[in-house]
Amino acid sequence: MLNGAQAMLKTLVKAGVRVCFTNPGTSEMHFVAALDGEPGMRAVLTLFEGVASGAADGYARMSGEVAATLLHLGCGLGNGLANLHNARKARVPILNIVGDHATYHVRYDAQLQSDIETVARNVSTWVRTVKSPQTLCTDTAEAIAVSQGAPRQIATLIVPADVSWSEGAQVAPVQPVPARPQVSPDRLQAIAGVLSAHPGKTLILLGGAALYGEGLELAARIAAHRGVRLLAEVFPARIARGAGLPHVERLAYFAEMAAVQLRGVRHLILVDAKSPVSFFAYPGKKSDLLPSGCEVHELARLDEDAIASLRALAERLGAMNQAPQLQAPQRPPLPQAHLSAEKTCQIIAHLLPERAIIVDEAQTSGVSLPMWSAGAPAHDVLTLTGGAIGQGLPLAVGAAIACPDRPVLALIGDGAAMYTLQALWTLARERLNVTTLILNNRSYAILNVELQRVGAVAGAKSAEKARAQLDLQQPALDFVHLGQGMGVDSVRVRTCEDLIRELERCLATPGPHLIEALIPNEFTGIKLKLLPHLLRHLEHLPRPWAQAIKRKVAP
Amino acid sequence: MLNGAQAMLKTLVKAGVRVCFTNPGTSEMHFVAALDGEPGMRAVLTLFEGVASGAADGYARMSGEVAATLLHLGCGLGNGLANLHNARKARVPILNIVGDHATYHVRYDAQLQSDIETVARNVSTWVRTVKSPQTLCTDTAEAIAVSQGAPRQIATLIVPADVSWSEGAQVAPVQPVPARPQVSPDRLQAIAGVLSAHPGKTLILLGGAALYGEGLELAARIAAHRGVRLLAEVFPARIARGAGLPHVERLAYFAEMAAVQLRGVRHLILVDAKSPVSFFAYPGKKSDLLPSGCEVHELARLDEDAIASLRALAERLGAMNQAPQLQAPQRPPLPQAHLSAEKTCQIIAHLLPERAIIVDEAQTSGVSLPMWSAGAPAHDVLTLTGGAIGQGLPLAVGAAIACPDRPVLALIGDGAAMYTLQALWTLARERLNVTTLILNNRSYAILNVELQRVGAVAGAKSAEKARAQLDLQQPALDFVHLGQGMGVDSVRVRTCEDLIRELERCLATPGPHLIEALIPNEFTGIKLKLLPHLLRHLEHLPRPWAQAIKRKVAP
Repeated sequence: MLNGAQAMLKTLVKAGVRVCFTNPGTSEMHFVAALDGEPGMRAVLTLFEGVASGAADGYARMSGEVAATLLHLGCGLGNGLANLHNARKARVPILNIVGDHATYHVRYDAQLQSDIETVARNVSTWVRTVKSPQTLCTDTAEAIAVSQGAPRQIATLIVPADVSWSEGAQVAPVQPVPARPQVSPDRLQAIAGVLSAHPGKTLILLGGAALYGEGLELAARIAAHRGVRLLAEVFPARIARGAGLPHVERLAYFAEMAAVQLRGVRHLILVDAKSPVSFFAYPGKKSDLLPSGCEVHELARLDEDAIASLRALAERLGAMNQAPQLQAPQRPPLPQAHLSAEKTCQIIAHLLPERAIIVDEAQTSGVSLPMWSAGAPAHDVLTLTGGAIGQGLPLAVGAAIACPDRPVLALIGDGAAMYTLQALWTLARERLNVTTLILNNRSYAILNVELQRVGAVAGAKSAEKARAQLDLQQPALDFVHLGQGMGVDSVRVRTCEDLIRELERCLATPGPHLIEALIPNEFTGIKLKLLPHLLRHLEHLPRPWAQAIKRKVAP
Repeated sequence: MLNGAQAMLKTLVKAGVRVCFTNPGTSEMHFVAALDGEPGMRAVLTLFEGVASGAADGYARMSGEVAATLLHLGCGLGNGLANLHNARKARVPILNIVGDHATYHVRYDAQLQSDIETVARNVSTWVRTVKSPQTLCTDTAEAIAVSQGAPRQIATLIVPADVSWSEGAQVAPVQPVPARPQVSPDRLQAIAGVLSAHPGKTLILLGGAALYGEGLELAARIAAHRGVRLLAEVFPARIARGAGLPHVERLAYFAEMAAVQLRGVRHLILVDAKSPVSFFAYPGKKSDLLPSGCEVHELARLDEDAIASLRALAERLGAMNQAPQLQAPQRPPLPQAHLSAEKTCQIIAHLLPERAIIVDEAQTSGVSLPMWSAGAPAHDVLTLTGGAIGQGLPLAVGAAIACPDRPVLALIGDGAAMYTLQALWTLARERLNVTTLILNNRSYAILNVELQRVGAVAGAKSAEKARAQLDLQQPALDFVHLGQGMGVDSVRVRTCEDLIRELERCLATPGPHLIEALIPNEFTGIKLKLLPHLLRHLEHLPRPWAQAIKRKVAP
């Protein structure tokens, strides 16, 4: 006879859940004890719940499968919340299994008692506290199905300790995944009409499933067939790019630049993406980035099947046999002498191996990478979907577990790295083939930019205390020590030659590895010089756009 | 004319809020920019929000003042949630200032949009989103007052970015703190009657404000006057102890031991404490630790004034001039040779300086410290009030900022240290006089115990995967590297002689310092041998209790 935990594990494996990212406590001990009876389940221990939730996100993005987490009551879920927020925005299927006190213990309000359902609501539309061993496995099967539903989402199953340890649970059958509708005939007709009538003033904004694999290919056929532009949402969960693939520019983070990308667009067609808005609001600036008068058409809403909808459109347009425009192979030359953020990006683009997975959480420092790596060998890029930093290292854990045969390159800013640095330990423990490149400018550089953009410093006589809030120099973080402290081979580089040598070595040797690249903080003290600086990175834009930006923002 | 952020800062300082523990983002940039105009506010940057919230807790525990946090939207608050949970259980006054998107930006559901109020509800009974610059400062003043109210609590003020940057805010006057009632005459009479009629079968359980200062002194006078026993709640926010102070034993974490401490008690008098319950539930064991038939009397409920109530009781009993029983000075001898958890505790007790603040988050390894340090010079101990580990290092940050003239000694288990290790950086940055002692047994040792206690492993043929979930050996964490990586002087010790030398050095030199003590994991693989092991630490209990425990649990 099985206890609850044993039956739940069998239900999970039966439904295709094969990995669980864990940080268990006492209330999850029966789940832990049941692991040895279930060879189909891999349990990956993390030292902090934010690593578990971010790794689940990375795993789900790259495998397409449901990733499970095992978390300890409301506080464990709380620690995982920021990366679950990112995962929610990435629309990946995740099942949180959160242990709770025994049902009869709740009323005593013991130390760890908290309102788990309320914590979960922020990231989960489906939250359920299991009532008994008899319903545990059907609840589990339902949660797994719902997480893959329309749209993909995070389901949170709260499992009281006595439900786990009691006997009487039965393995439940797999439940059907809710069907995803595709575009309606009316919408399809309207969109086909727009594409035929106004191709030059139409933009197709791709997100979610439309940015890799079949979705991307279909979108590129349509674009080539009608001569319309494609653009990717600003922070995609996963975007495939590089030589031999369609090249899709991402919408810019800075609203000033996004406005230029969107200028003149009269029809915006959304495919698994939301209409573009500014990341933050700024005094006197619009939040909605759409040009006025632009009409929005939804080919695939977030809960719809993007690939089926794109296929329907391509068929209707007769674009199925249209050859898409593909990116030619191209690598930047290797730079020399002292490192900078841009030279680091050039080196990465020059050395990037085939089928790499890039995790990008280098906010300011990675800004030129998309340009330099556009013609590198085909690769996937995973980005910060929800804006909650501390996502990159955990994503790398999950991506590497999902794709053990692919090299993972995690580009992480120094500030971002410190939120979930514990991920390094799991990289070492699981011997994952991940090279972490810490771009260390010893600053929350993005906030130096934002401090100016919100107009907060203009007029301040002294900004010493304010600047100190963004400054990570005192003391300097030593990522070589930090990496070694968690069992990861770690080196520091200051020149291009050193980075080239070390990155070549890391990519040639099974991981994990860490390289700390010391780079100057190019944003400190620059007032309103930001945008011209960024302009240098806009050279891959069509010339008229770049000229328009220069006219608008150059001093 | 002041903008919202400037007026709010002046309102905070006027109401006595002097420290803010921060991890800001774009939506808090105006608050950050306003710091330079407000010399009365100290902003302490942390690299992770859980450090900020835990530091606020430590500051509030030791200063008695309201501590503020500055957090970035729902995800920043989420990262701070676990330590806010601990702070809620500690009943300390904290004001969370959480930046939000501009009011008009919310409807666009941008990347970082989340339901901040819902996240806050888990730890805050008072949550408010500010509607305009005109109400910002009165809302702030109200939040500050409420946080110090009856009971002390966490208030969360959500401040939209445009409220911070808009002009038209006015500094608000200080609002009165809600009065705390004291014990009613009826309850006072009943309790005085119990103490007179059944002193031998009565136990006074002290918590909160009754465990240090005047509250502790009054309780000790009453106990001595009537010959009743005192006991402290299991995880006090702050307990004063050592030579020259009343010695109050803490209720044991393990229910098996707590049951013995409570045996024979017919009347339990609660002073700012809750009736004792088991930390977790265990199959076949009671959650409620009260002996059956025991009557509970509340001298001071959690929202009442414990000191005034104790004073009223002492006056009524004529105990005001009763000399309390005080702990005599006593130090254990220094142990030799290889380190163990117990020897580490002996060394600490031998070397503990005057007026030290001990932060205790060494779950299994610190178990014998209360015994060995009972007669050390007077000190305060701060414990893990809410059970969410990752509290210790942040608490040390806050305690050191509240009491710059007192040495802080943080005892942290290796597992616990990794949740909020980023606190080391803030220790270094603020040059705080904290010695961190990492008790590294390379295991979640407490979970090895719990795995057995919940009965999860009995009967399992192989427990390899289960054991791996509790094992931190592969790879071994190197806390010397980790400490140095964040700018903290760090050493490793394996013998008593080394620890003695290094601890003496650290206590004699301004901090911060870190000592990694490698100790054996005494709990691995011991099955049901746990309790006899613990018995060795019960020798400070009255002999009949210790004998009773031995009879009950020895094999």
